[in-house]
Amino acid sequence: MTVTPVAIADPPLRSSYGLHAPYALRAIVELRSEDGVVGISETRGGDKMLADLERVRDVVVGSDARGLTHLQERVTAAHAATARNTVPGERTNPRDVPLRVYGALEVAALDLVARAEGVPFCDLLGGRVRDTVAFCGYLFYKHAGGGGEGDDAREDVYGEALTPGAIVAQARALRARYGFASLKLKAGVLDPEVEADAMLALRDAFGPGVPLRIDPNCAWTHDTALRVVERLHGVVEIVEDPVSGIGGMGALVAAMRERGIAIPLASNVAVTWFDDIPPAVACDAVQMILGDHHFWGGPRAITDLGRLCETFDLQLAMHSNSHLGVSLMAMVHVAAATPQLRYVCDTHYPWQDARDEIVEGGRVAIVDGAVAVPTAPGLGVTLDRDALARGRERYERQPYRKRDDTAEMRKHVDPAWTRTVPAW
Amino acid sequence: MTVTPVAIADPPLRSSYGLHAPYALRAIVELRSEDGVVGISETRGGDKMLADLERVRDVVVGSDARGLTHLQERVTAAHAATARNTVPGERTNPRDVPLRVYGALEVAALDLVARAEGVPFCDLLGGRVRDTVAFCGYLFYKHAGGGGEGDDAREDVYGEALTPGAIVAQARALRARYGFASLKLKAGVLDPEVEADAMLALRDAFGPGVPLRIDPNCAWTHDTALRVVERLHGVVEIVEDPVSGIGGMGALVAAMRERGIAIPLASNVAVTWFDDIPPAVACDAVQMILGDHHFWGGPRAITDLGRLCETFDLQLAMHSNSHLGVSLMAMVHVAAATPQLRYVCDTHYPWQDARDEIVEGGRVAIVDGAVAVPTAPGLGVTLDRDALARGRERYERQPYRKRDDTAEMRKHVDPAWTRTVPAW
Repeated sequence: MTVTPVAIADPPLRSSYGLHAPYALRAIVELRSEDGVVGISETRGGDKMLADLERVRDVVVGSDARGLTHLQERVTAAHAATARNTVPGERTNPRDVPLRVYGALEVAALDLVARAEGVPFCDLLGGRVRDTVAFCGYLFYKHAGGGGEGDDAREDVYGEALTPGAIVAQARALRARYGFASLKLKAGVLDPEVEADAMLALRDAFGPGVPLRIDPNCAWTHDTALRVVERLHGVVEIVEDPVSGIGGMGALVAAMRERGIAIPLASNVAVTWFDDIPPAVACDAVQMILGDHHFWGGPRAITDLGRLCETFDLQLAMHSNSHLGVSLMAMVHVAAATPQLRYVCDTHYPWQDARDEIVEGGRVAIVDGAVAVPTAPGLGVTLDRDALARGRERYERQPYRKRDDTAEMRKHVDPAWTRTVPAW
Repeated sequence: MTVTPVAIADPPLRSSYGLHAPYALRAIVELRSEDGVVGISETRGGDKMLADLERVRDVVVGSDARGLTHLQERVTAAHAATARNTVPGERTNPRDVPLRVYGALEVAALDLVARAEGVPFCDLLGGRVRDTVAFCGYLFYKHAGGGGEGDDAREDVYGEALTPGAIVAQARALRARYGFASLKLKAGVLDPEVEADAMLALRDAFGPGVPLRIDPNCAWTHDTALRVVERLHGVVEIVEDPVSGIGGMGALVAAMRERGIAIPLASNVAVTWFDDIPPAVACDAVQMILGDHHFWGGPRAITDLGRLCETFDLQLAMHSNSHLGVSLMAMVHVAAATPQLRYVCDTHYPWQDARDEIVEGGRVAIVDGAVAVPTAPGLGVTLDRDALARGRERYERQPYRKRDDTAEMRKHVDPAWTRTVPAW
């Protein structure tokens, strides 16, 4: 087991959590079998994640790459002592650490087995039900800058975007480059009415044939959310986490129905693991779950989540964080093997720079808003050792060791900024 | 794809459905890959099942054995026209046919892949979390006779059992031979008080260290069930399908709780597929689901069901029908790969005769009530071609082409018998 931290340039994107730092942190996990086959995986980076992975090294080394469920049991046991160490008063997933750690290991183990067998990764998940996986164009409020610092600063391809007009321009640029058929705005940054203006401007610009989503990441009060969704009824396809908490989402759904507002609510904040689903179902808090193999516990957790969503008549889509091509390809294989996934997936991939990509051949192609599901063995991408080494050097050189969007907000926007939920 | 019908001697066992015929019908499915690897599977037999399997031959032949989800989609489509062809007024699973057909194919396809890779079947399901799988001693009210007809009639090993004392004797005999640590009585046959007497007699005979279950297969009214569970409180571990329907089960659970009767209700009749789970959860109708890869849609459906049960705090166990060693080994591998399965599984295997076994080496060993999870490739059993041919000849020779426990009751017990639910 080898874990390599990498840093990748990240533009100054905004969300209700604050501001992205100039670098995003990722970790590349490699599992090498006795006969030399290597499986790879990408996950969240930073010192905490590296330590969490290191903690299970003895559990992983010597394990059977096909013995996934038993591995998960042992990873969970190894992290049991820390599992309840959550922030008091804040809703957290007590199994976040073991699920993230195991999720990263499951991808690498499945990749190893798939390469050893000479079959695509998705074939270990029941095989593909689609040959391409569609992603949405992920729009962000953004300050000027392309990410990276000093000599490593990158070109600002998309420019500042803090107005409805600039968001439309950003959407045009992303669509021109990647062909996205669907758009999603990360909101919760500006006044909700201005964000609603942006959605209406997108609708005006692209017409009803381009589905739109908005995701304020819990930044709104019940009343604000109700006002905004009323304004956006018939305009947006889905609203993600407008308010916080399963109870809050459920109350909003009830109020929306009373007013005849039929927009499904999606979540990757109120519902982040299997244990969140029963209470969410009980009050019909969400109509769509955004899964993510990185923190739900690996690819098999997402195919299981698909069955569960189908059973409870919930829709399924896919969340993302800033990531490189290894995570992208894992997402593509998982999506290819999950028949219940009928909506486009999220990806931050367009915001990353070609210089940071660590897979051989460089950036994975997104054509017509979609990625082709590889037919080559395993994930279908391999590590470019030189690029990986550069990513590691970049990690060592840059000062960030954890994601801290609050610190960046204080540095660049408002020294007194604190995340407040709800903010409006 | 080769499908071989077989008939196996079956003793005159009783249930609320009636009386077992002298032969049970099974079908053996073989899938042969281009390079000659053969995967095997066993499922329900009879003309209807054979026709249902035949209907998807064109879908199966030429398919990728790893492309399971896509295969399931095509099997479902092939049976869509018949999927709603259910008995009016009776609760049925409209997807029973495609789920059974696909389930049989999934076992054979997974076995084929596992043999091709040289790994045990369970390794394609995330690997084993246990090395042995425990079964309960499955007690039946039974007429005299060992199954089979004419020259093919078998020795009546266990004798008639129509009284509490005879049920205790049957339990002793089964425990002596197989070492079962847990016992389950198929009830719904005699007066409920007499069946409760049997449970108390079992408790007296074996003490509290031997967990007991009773399964009247919906034969009781709400009031009868309430009276019986009150009598059996502290005696039985679980009651299965005491009354019929999700609503009926939910009402019984509510009434039991009011009276402080804390016996979990299990089901393989009220809850038979994923779509039954949301309404069951909504009224807390069941605390345990008895899965069965034969009709839930294959092994992966059961591992998914495990995750779903864990999520909704339901227990999981395993249902069985009369079966041979191929089904037994599939059940063992599925159970080995399903960590949420913490209760003993059902099996009718002890009621079958060595002469009918179709796997090489004869009957699979049950030691201390458990079957060892094989480490050989695939299911760990292969077909004995001569025994299979004999099973097929037996199928052709004997007159039964579908299971009809009502017809047997009319023939041997009461010419006017009709299944009535509830009966008491």
